[in-house]
Amino acid sequence: MKEIKIHEVGLRDGLQMEPESIPTITKIQWAESLIDSGIDILQLGSFVNPKVLIQMADTDELFEHFNQPENKPKNTILSALILNEKGLERAMKANVDMICLGVSASETHSQKNTRMSVQQASEKIINIAKDAISAKKQVQASVQSAFGCGFEGDIPEENVYTIIDKYLNAGIKIISLADTAGYANPAKVERMFSKIAQMDNNIELACHFHNTYGLGIANVYAAYKVGVKYIESAFGGLGGCPFTKVAAGNVSTEDILTMFQEMGIRKDINIKKIKSVSLYAEGFLMKELPSYTYKNNGIKH
Amino acid sequence: MKEIKIHEVGLRDGLQMEPESIPTITKIQWAESLIDSGIDILQLGSFVNPKVLIQMADTDELFEHFNQPENKPKNTILSALILNEKGLERAMKANVDMICLGVSASETHSQKNTRMSVQQASEKIINIAKDAISAKKQVQASVQSAFGCGFEGDIPEENVYTIIDKYLNAGIKIISLADTAGYANPAKVERMFSKIAQMDNNIELACHFHNTYGLGIANVYAAYKVGVKYIESAFGGLGGCPFTKVAAGNVSTEDILTMFQEMGIRKDINIKKIKSVSLYAEGFLMKELPSYTYKNNGIKH
Repeated sequence: MKEIKIHEVGLRDGLQMEPESIPTITKIQWAESLIDSGIDILQLGSFVNPKVLIQMADTDELFEHFNQPENKPKNTILSALILNEKGLERAMKANVDMICLGVSASETHSQKNTRMSVQQASEKIINIAKDAISAKKQVQASVQSAFGCGFEGDIPEENVYTIIDKYLNAGIKIISLADTAGYANPAKVERMFSKIAQMDNNIELACHFHNTYGLGIANVYAAYKVGVKYIESAFGGLGGCPFTKVAAGNVSTEDILTMFQEMGIRKDINIKKIKSVSLYAEGFLMKELPSYTYKNNGIKH
Repeated sequence: MKEIKIHEVGLRDGLQMEPESIPTITKIQWAESLIDSGIDILQLGSFVNPKVLIQMADTDELFEHFNQPENKPKNTILSALILNEKGLERAMKANVDMICLGVSASETHSQKNTRMSVQQASEKIINIAKDAISAKKQVQASVQSAFGCGFEGDIPEENVYTIIDKYLNAGIKIISLADTAGYANPAKVERMFSKIAQMDNNIELACHFHNTYGLGIANVYAAYKVGVKYIESAFGGLGGCPFTKVAAGNVSTEDILTMFQEMGIRKDINIKKIKSVSLYAEGFLMKELPSYTYKNNGIKH
C-alpha cells in the first residue's frame, strides 16, 4: 500500500478568493480542528502583500500563535505559500516548517500573476528555493497550470518537464503539479506523474487539483495509483474563482479521505473533525460548500 | 484504447424518484436530443406497475413513438428495465432492443424491493432473462448493491460472484454492477471487475454508479481502466433519493463524457446536446442538477 500525506490548503487556497476576510480567531479555531483531525500538513496562509490580498494579511500572526509551545502541533507540519524574497524573509521570521512556492507553465498566466516570463519566474523562484533549502526548510515547488491554462488552453507537457528539471537541479525534492484551471484528466495525470517520477530517484510527488469539471477526485485516484504522495485539498471543497458561476473549488479533503478510507488507507485521520470545519465555514460564509461527504453527515462517515 | 459505450439512464433512473411526472411529450423531446447527441444506448423507462411508479407509466407509449419508422433512432439502441414476467411481456410487445434486469446482492434490499430472498429473486430473474434471450433480445443483467448496501453495509464480494456465475450459466453476456447506495470506491471497483472479467471470455462488463460520496467519476475511471465497456449515467447527474439532503444522483453523463473526451475517447458524442437536456430539466424540475459540466456551459465543453 502506498503512503499518502494530506496537505490541507483550505485556509490559504480556500479562503483567498472569498470576498470577506475571516477573523484571525476563527481561522485559529478552524486550524485547531484541522490539526486535531490528524492531517499531515496544514497550510496556514501565504506571505503576500496584504494590500493585494487582505484575506491573507494575518499569516504572520497565525504562525506566531501556533509557534508558541502550548499551541505548536505535535504531528502536523505547518506550511505557507510564498511568492518572492520578501515572502521568504517573512516565512523565515515566522519559523514556517515547510515552504511552498511555484511557477506557472503558462506564459500568459505567468505574466498576469507575476509580470515575468516563465523563464524569468523560474530563475527567481529557484533562487528563493535554494535559500530556503540552505536554511534547512522543507521546500515544495509546484508547477501551476501544469495540465492546461484557462487563458492558453493546452500547455505542452515538455514545458512542464523543463521547469521540473530545473527544480531537481536546484536540489528541490518535493514537486507538485497544480491543476489551476481544472483541466487535468486522469489519463494525463497518470502519464505526466509517471514520467516525472522517472526523472529522479529521490523525488517526492505532490498534486493539487481543482474540481471545475468534476474530475478532481478521479485525478487524485490516478495520481495515487502512480505514486503521488502528497495530496493537496481543501476542507469543504472550498476555493475557486468568485467571478464565475462555476463551482471550481479545490478537491474536498473530506471527499478524498472518504475515498482513501474506503480503500483502507489513512483511517487514522478523523474526517468528522474536518467536516466540523466545513459546516462552521458554511455557516460563516453563508453558502453551501461543494463537498459531497460533509453533506452526508451521519450517513456513512 | 478501450472501447466504451454510453448507456444513458436519466429518463428512467433519473426521473423515477422525482415527485412529479414529466409529460410524455417532454420526455420525447429530451430523448430526441439525447439520441441526437450520439450516445449508444438510451433507456426510455421501465415496465413496472404504473400504480407503484406513476413516473414510468408512459414507457409503452414512449416505445410506441420511437418504434415508428420516422422516429426510430438509427444508431442508438433503446433499452428498458423490467422487474418481472409482466414487464417482459410488455417489453416484448413494445419491441425493446435491449432488456435490463437485475437482482440485489443484499438480502434486506432484495426483500424490501421484491419480497424475495436473493436466491428466489435470482431464479426468477434468470428465467425471465432466458426467455428474453430466446426471443433474440439483447439482455443486460445487473447486480444491485454490488459494492455495499444502505441497509446492510458491506456485502461479501463472494455473494456478488455467486449471482454472476448464475447469470453466466444462463447465457447472459452483459453483466452490470450497480452501486445503488454509492458505496463503491475505485480500488474495490478495479478488484471486483478484474475478478469478474476472468470468469468468462465473452463477458461484457457494465457499471452503474451513484455519486453519494463524490466518488462516482473516479469509480467510472477505475472501471474503464480494467475493461468495463458499458457506462451507465444520467444527464445532469439526475436521480437519487428525494428523502435525504444527500446529492446522490447518478454519475452525470456530461461529466463522464468530459473526462473521456479529455482523454481522447468518444469525441464523436455531442456533449452540448446532452447539456441542453440538463438545462431544460433544470428549468422543468426547478432545481439545480449536480453535474459539474453543464454548469460550465461555454467555458470549456
